[in-house]
Amino acid sequence: MNALALDTVVLSEDRKTLDVLDQTLLPNTIKILHLSAMEDIWEAIRSLRVRGAPAIGVCAGYAMALAASQIGTEDRDAFLRELHAVREYLATSRPTAVNLFWALDRMERAAASRPEASVTQLRELLFAEADAIRAEDIAISRSIGAIGLGLLHHGDGILTHCNAGTLATAKYGTATAPIYAALEQGWRDLRVYCDETRPLLQGARLTALEMVSAGVDTTLLCDNAAASLMQSGKIHIVFVGCDRVARNGDAANKIGTSAVAILARHYGIPFYVCAPSSTIDMALPDGAAIPIEQRGAEEVTEMWYARRMAPEGVGVYNPAFDVTDHSLITGIITERGLCTAPYEAAFRTLGF
Amino acid sequence: MNALALDTVVLSEDRKTLDVLDQTLLPNTIKILHLSAMEDIWEAIRSLRVRGAPAIGVCAGYAMALAASQIGTEDRDAFLRELHAVREYLATSRPTAVNLFWALDRMERAAASRPEASVTQLRELLFAEADAIRAEDIAISRSIGAIGLGLLHHGDGILTHCNAGTLATAKYGTATAPIYAALEQGWRDLRVYCDETRPLLQGARLTALEMVSAGVDTTLLCDNAAASLMQSGKIHIVFVGCDRVARNGDAANKIGTSAVAILARHYGIPFYVCAPSSTIDMALPDGAAIPIEQRGAEEVTEMWYARRMAPEGVGVYNPAFDVTDHSLITGIITERGLCTAPYEAAFRTLGF
Repeated sequence: MNALALDTVVLSEDRKTLDVLDQTLLPNTIKILHLSAMEDIWEAIRSLRVRGAPAIGVCAGYAMALAASQIGTEDRDAFLRELHAVREYLATSRPTAVNLFWALDRMERAAASRPEASVTQLRELLFAEADAIRAEDIAISRSIGAIGLGLLHHGDGILTHCNAGTLATAKYGTATAPIYAALEQGWRDLRVYCDETRPLLQGARLTALEMVSAGVDTTLLCDNAAASLMQSGKIHIVFVGCDRVARNGDAANKIGTSAVAILARHYGIPFYVCAPSSTIDMALPDGAAIPIEQRGAEEVTEMWYARRMAPEGVGVYNPAFDVTDHSLITGIITERGLCTAPYEAAFRTLGF
Repeated sequence: MNALALDTVVLSEDRKTLDVLDQTLLPNTIKILHLSAMEDIWEAIRSLRVRGAPAIGVCAGYAMALAASQIGTEDRDAFLRELHAVREYLATSRPTAVNLFWALDRMERAAASRPEASVTQLRELLFAEADAIRAEDIAISRSIGAIGLGLLHHGDGILTHCNAGTLATAKYGTATAPIYAALEQGWRDLRVYCDETRPLLQGARLTALEMVSAGVDTTLLCDNAAASLMQSGKIHIVFVGCDRVARNGDAANKIGTSAVAILARHYGIPFYVCAPSSTIDMALPDGAAIPIEQRGAEEVTEMWYARRMAPEGVGVYNPAFDVTDHSLITGIITERGLCTAPYEAAFRTLGF
């Protein structure tokens, strides 16, 4: 098994089903779901069978195209009305996922903006638009990988947190893209260290799986061991993904990312955020304006376990994300280029 | 259930067994092991059924007394030789645990230093010495609690890591001693935050259990959420225990402690190490000389889980401890008094 050979989300050849790798079963079971009903696609997004902002965007694109192929009218207005209803429905699956709305809106706009096209043509056009979202996502990852590769040295130890890998995108990932780029260049001497990333264990279940399956020297650690590992001198660079970046460079990412950044600063290790341009939100002045989703206590006390691991009656602090202050970030790698402080100016130079 | 009412390690009334609370089964099951064979006591220490430096010391003291009662000779030299063999055997159970060696050596010395005593008298003397270790441990915790209470303010949010609670000692704990002292003084407005402390979850299973059962406002968090919590302003002080302190103040404690110290420094939060004098090792120049136990991969990949949570073939970095640099420590609370930098001079002033 090579994770890169697995498609996270892909349309079947006969364009009848959306084929989704069920990530909730990893690393133990590789199961591809063949989904055609919108209810099943909604559930796959809702239950994190497909996850990672870029992958959700790709999934939403194909879902809209698939829905369009299932709408049984040749009347253009009726078709657009039904397509809009699908958009509204799918938007409820992950109400905080910005990429979901972005992709749904892009698909709806692609259809609405072609008054000259027949419904048959619109159906084709939507398949092409979904393919374009996927192709663009792969190109973004490849560009981030190429830029990140320039920051690596042979023999480096790389720390990453959570999963911003090929499983979170159409292919290659964001934080893992420089590693895949190095592999393509024949590098065989990188060592990758994966924070397990409690409570959902994306580092253990997903990133470690990707890296091992790609043949990389891979070491898993509990999140709390990162300081010890840095102290030992084994980490030379940190790459993480992100969910949203404010215009001053403050970056929201999986809970624990800001801790890694503080530790990296303490030990003088460069810390890079890999950020597709869709995550850079110039309307946000700083990280304080980024809403942070609080998730259920059971993720910490019970999930995955054979039995409950905390006493009844305990409160649980379980934010899904934290915000890393821009002052802790060595650089933000976008597909358009590497940005360094001051970030607002750097972003504007790249046209954000 | 009130954790303070549970004995961590106690000799049975008939002095035939060492009665150990099996902490690996907490918080779900309260099971007392009745151990008499040294192999079983070795296993209980090795497998963390009894854990926490002071509790291990108490356990080692009673184990030596119990072994002495089982040695079937009245010849003094043969008795001391067999007792030494027990000491050597038990010392292999936890290589980083300085309290283990300290207690074993104290027990052996107590026997060897009484040339006038018969073997029968030595057996009694060793039971008395083990009782003394336990009584002293309780007194130490009470003193640390009184000193730590002086550092608290009403309404404080306190972060702790791992378990340096009553379950880690004979009673009251070290890092939790100030909280128990505050409770005894009628304080009802402290909030305690417990890092869950992967991979063995002592924070979730033990500290949270202790605090909830004592009626404290208790919140559990994944280790990687501590930075987010500090950023939110909810933490005013950190108390942690320790396993071994070098004379320059470098302190070894549960993996992740040094990360908490670095985060606390970043956010300007005072960070205190609660250190019974038995953990202060003036023979060690600094933390680099402290051996760090590496533990098995399965603790990270499989333990507690309903199914394996990491891919086959992944390496695992699983040190049991890390070393917090003295420069990150606001103060070290010993039962003799509060020490601040420079630590070597402070330790010498207190007679270490």
